Amino acid sequence: MELFIQPIGRLINEFSKLPGVGKKTAQRYAYKVISMSAAEAEAFAAAITECKRKVRYCKVCGNFTESEVCEICRSRDKSVICVVKDPRDVVAMEKLREFKGVYHVLHGVISPMDGVGPNDIRIKELLARIDGTVKEVIMATNPDVEGEATAMYIAKLLKPLGVNVTRLAHGIPIGGELEYTDEVTLSRALSERKTL
Amino acid sequence: MELFIQPIGRLINEFSKLPGVGKKTAQRYAYKVISMSAAEAEAFAAAITECKRKVRYCKVCGNFTESEVCEICRSRDKSVICVVKDPRDVVAMEKLREFKGVYHVLHGVISPMDGVGPNDIRIKELLARIDGTVKEVIMATNPDVEGEATAMYIAKLLKPLGVNVTRLAHGIPIGGELEYTDEVTLSRALSERKTL
Repeated sequence: MELFIQPIGRLINEFSKLPGVGKKTAQRYAYKVISMSAAEAEAFAAAITECKRKVRYCKVCGNFTESEVCEICRSRDKSVICVVKDPRDVVAMEKLREFKGVYHVLHGVISPMDGVGPNDIRIKELLARIDGTVKEVIMATNPDVEGEATAMYIAKLLKPLGVNVTRLAHGIPIGGELEYTDEVTLSRALSERKTL
Repeated sequence: MELFIQPIGRLINEFSKLPGVGKKTAQRYAYKVISMSAAEAEAFAAAITECKRKVRYCKVCGNFTESEVCEICRSRDKSVICVVKDPRDVVAMEKLREFKGVYHVLHGVISPMDGVGPNDIRIKELLARIDGTVKEVIMATNPDVEGEATAMYIAKLLKPLGVNVTRLAHGIPIGGELEYTDEVTLSRALSERKTL
């Protein structure tokens, strides 16, 4: 016979799909769900469906939003655009509570090894945003090989358009991830950004 | 403004309720959900609700089941009852594929420190199961202070009923958890069980 009855086995299987979750951890999560009240379990399930149903991408910057255009694009200084790889990098920047501009989420970086070319990420959407009002584009892709290459590539496209392109200063450890950089280092990197 | 829009924040909050999950891990899980297809997210949410709705306790042994009486109680040798603390300990025993008897899940152990007395766990339900047909009761509570005390307490109640009460042999590291014992050690402990 099976070790787990079908509903438990199925839930363990679902939890196993989460990043870094193995069978044992998935079991612990499933037991936790069983020990919840019916209302708590409903709320948990509803949060998953709601999140998937309500969250979409801002048609301007590509960040997560519930409406067509995100809160940041609607309310902030559009003359400075910070270009990041992922929506989670927006969260990292926002934690500083320092940056007053808007974002542009590439949803990836150029990576020939993984078959990701310039047309696979949101570069042309960025170019379309460059009008007379944009004074500066801050390249805030991760300081790894792909991130650096993507920053250089985009900088080359933007310069002829007469926009000032900057890069977050080193201070972020090379090879590291923007998402996991501590706030002091990230803040320093922001204030020491330099023209490419 | 909030770092996360409401549906994402809510999902992060729900994931944070899982054991051992902090804010950062909950974020990673939430991003994973967003990256799922709508159907996958629905399946995940449904697995949670289904698991909570369908799983109940076997009215005989107290293990998880979908029906009134669990598969093990319906199909196996009722003359040997293995007494465990938790449904997850049943899983640990079942992995051996050696034990042919049935279980009794106490849903806890006697622990005066935590205010858990003999009447708070399923001891009287165990006594009610002891009729002429039961030849042996194997006490398989964890080999820690509470588990040993509970085993002794139950053994004292069972002996006057003329039933053979045994305890899993040492071999399980003292202070350890049944759930995390490797299968070889647990198998050895089962075969060397001794009369209390």
